[in-house]
Amino acid sequence: MQTRFELKQSDMPTRWYNVQADLDKPLPPPLHPLTLKPAGPDDMAPIFPMALIAQEMSGDRYIDIPDEVQEILRLWRPTPLMRAVRLEKALGTPAKIFFKYEGSSPTGSHKPNTAVAQAYYNKISGITKLTTETGAGQWGSALAMACNFFDIECKVYMVKVSYQLKPGRRSVMQLFGASVTASPSDETDSGRAILAEDPESPGSLGIAISEAVEVALKRDDTKYSLGSVLNHVLMHQTVIGEEVIKQLDLAGVSEPDVVIGCVGGGSNFGGIALPFLRQNLKDGAKTRLVAVEPMACPTMTKGLYAYDYGDTAKMAPVIKMRTLGHDFVPPSIHAGGLRYHGMAPILSALHSEGLIEAVAVPQVETFQAAQLFAQTEGIIPAPESAHAIRAAVDEALDAKAKEEERTIVFGLSGHGYLDLTSYDAFLGGHLDNYAYPEEKVREALGKLPHPEQA
Amino acid sequence: MQTRFELKQSDMPTRWYNVQADLDKPLPPPLHPLTLKPAGPDDMAPIFPMALIAQEMSGDRYIDIPDEVQEILRLWRPTPLMRAVRLEKALGTPAKIFFKYEGSSPTGSHKPNTAVAQAYYNKISGITKLTTETGAGQWGSALAMACNFFDIECKVYMVKVSYQLKPGRRSVMQLFGASVTASPSDETDSGRAILAEDPESPGSLGIAISEAVEVALKRDDTKYSLGSVLNHVLMHQTVIGEEVIKQLDLAGVSEPDVVIGCVGGGSNFGGIALPFLRQNLKDGAKTRLVAVEPMACPTMTKGLYAYDYGDTAKMAPVIKMRTLGHDFVPPSIHAGGLRYHGMAPILSALHSEGLIEAVAVPQVETFQAAQLFAQTEGIIPAPESAHAIRAAVDEALDAKAKEEERTIVFGLSGHGYLDLTSYDAFLGGHLDNYAYPEEKVREALGKLPHPEQA
Repeated sequence: MQTRFELKQSDMPTRWYNVQADLDKPLPPPLHPLTLKPAGPDDMAPIFPMALIAQEMSGDRYIDIPDEVQEILRLWRPTPLMRAVRLEKALGTPAKIFFKYEGSSPTGSHKPNTAVAQAYYNKISGITKLTTETGAGQWGSALAMACNFFDIECKVYMVKVSYQLKPGRRSVMQLFGASVTASPSDETDSGRAILAEDPESPGSLGIAISEAVEVALKRDDTKYSLGSVLNHVLMHQTVIGEEVIKQLDLAGVSEPDVVIGCVGGGSNFGGIALPFLRQNLKDGAKTRLVAVEPMACPTMTKGLYAYDYGDTAKMAPVIKMRTLGHDFVPPSIHAGGLRYHGMAPILSALHSEGLIEAVAVPQVETFQAAQLFAQTEGIIPAPESAHAIRAAVDEALDAKAKEEERTIVFGLSGHGYLDLTSYDAFLGGHLDNYAYPEEKVREALGKLPHPEQA
Repeated sequence: MQTRFELKQSDMPTRWYNVQADLDKPLPPPLHPLTLKPAGPDDMAPIFPMALIAQEMSGDRYIDIPDEVQEILRLWRPTPLMRAVRLEKALGTPAKIFFKYEGSSPTGSHKPNTAVAQAYYNKISGITKLTTETGAGQWGSALAMACNFFDIECKVYMVKVSYQLKPGRRSVMQLFGASVTASPSDETDSGRAILAEDPESPGSLGIAISEAVEVALKRDDTKYSLGSVLNHVLMHQTVIGEEVIKQLDLAGVSEPDVVIGCVGGGSNFGGIALPFLRQNLKDGAKTRLVAVEPMACPTMTKGLYAYDYGDTAKMAPVIKMRTLGHDFVPPSIHAGGLRYHGMAPILSALHSEGLIEAVAVPQVETFQAAQLFAQTEGIIPAPESAHAIRAAVDEALDAKAKEEERTIVFGLSGHGYLDLTSYDAFLGGHLDNYAYPEEKVREALGKLPHPEQA
């Protein structure tokens, strides 16, 4: 039985899909972090090159992928779509389970899809240095590789707790020539402010973003690069879903029942799900689109849909999104990744309109699903991706209980070979099912910006 | 330009190639380690199942791959053949460089190709437990995964210096349900003997093999599994070279000028090179076949072609091979893998007959080639595989100097995501170009067994 559905190199998508063209109403505009007034392209220009700002605000349904970007994406794309027959058997489910494997990229996740595009547009805009933040390190590795390809200097602020737990990720970035600093650091005003309050701060994505943005703001030849959340980032990831549609066609599936992806900032889920959303909106398909997050960082399921800062030091644009509050710091013991306080505005809007679903899963059961997946399919998933597996397994078990045939597709956004300390904690029984408390969400509400009063 | 040459899942080879059928004269027989008399199947039966012993001694040119093994190999096979256009450009060479990427397997190397086959044949022979050794951990991970698939208990003795430097590999094996012990250990007579002499012993493959064999010898339901060296292991790996031949055909190449692979025990090189040797022997092709080893463990280029023990405690069969002596312990600072004192008898015989070439490369230049490869092609190679890259780069530079078109194929046997401590040592300038001294080889000569006197 065929279980792998391969596309030829020449079948790789040559344009990105921009869901903004298909939204009923335009997204609420980003706001300037100081004035809280709608931010135009000029307000974004200090941190992003104009080509990416144009994509961020574009209403075009498709945007061509430049040849220079395609050439590099083809080093690993198209990626495989597999049917997880051995997992199906282990579950005894009548459901068919497919997964799209982005871990076959050089740095082991979906992140290079946008990193390469962003490095390219910065390069042709004359930028010589990019700054960014990274949590578990997947994004930092991807941007380090992409900058290396385009001969751009790369500076990564890495959340301190990850910097300490995952030295391998640092080595990867350095091997590609990037400079890596644990965040909060004493290199920036925002880092120093945090350290003054708490010298032992484990860091957070919000803090690391502040440091990276601050450095970019100070120099004309330096810009900032974000690995998720923004519209253009999700758009760059749509190559994933476009490939899945072609591959499911090879497998004889025209309309899966459900497409599942994990969400941190939303780029992986957006990448696999948005092309299916187009099918739902335009072709009358009824594929359920399910975003999966950890109970320790339940942005979609417990967060507020409100304007909030993208970073802790309030320097990044203010956007309307699902948020747990820009002061959010996940507990250090949380091993499961997906720790950002906010969520892509596109996904936040789609969720509030009922066009996508969201579910939060507990950590221990998530790692159990990851182990089951490894033991049946061989691949050790990234902890982030394991959330999608958990939800896919739950879907398959639900189909079993209801004796339903069901076609389940999930995104396996990366492998876990650089996250083995997390698996060690799991195997040693050191993980728990911490759920972010409701009262903390309510507390964060008081700290949100109030644009209507600005 | 097409740079990836994909086969369909259904194009995977369905039979292994056994080079023994095409040798001018049979290989010298293995000897019993106590009597030093030729060992028959019954002598091997305490450590290997009869089906594998039959393969070890088979004269059949092709052996069918069982369906149950094919089903699992198709989780990741066929693996990609890529043309390294960006590396070619960086070198400014007129040569075409292709690489076969086995790092896309679930445990990240070529090792599962034989692990799955060995676990299968043990399973159908009623064996419930397998023991093995592992150095850097690629083999142990592969066997742990394979045993998990066939519901066999797996016990791995891991060379202590690697156990300490590479905790990630241990986690991988444990995630697949294997039990992992640092070697030398106090669990076996051979381990205790070594520890009594040197409590701080960093271990070696030879010692770890002794421990694993000892455990297998003690129980009828337990056998031992070896990840390289033996004839059946090399045969299981020929799926690599068979796929390369088909993929080069897609690329319009019928006879490459040179095929390059790294050698430790020889299974990776045998896997990619032996199908090309068949073309040389049977079809009059003239592809050079080059085995690459570290100067720190120069088995092929400096070792003796003589009968020697496969393990330190003299319990494994004695085989005629290139050897540095069974007491060989590589320096702990050597980060480059490929540390076994012996070499596959097939490759040793072919080398002595001039049918394959061998070259030893220095460690620092090997890591430099690995970094260049990562920076051009994106993939971070395993240190072992980096030896093949070094030799391929040298070939390409030689072609450049001579202004020759040349088609170079090398095996990229695995990725380096679980070897980042080695890269850290490289980036920190802590590696040297230690070359194993000639006088040590001469010294080892005195300790070799003398079968003619037995």
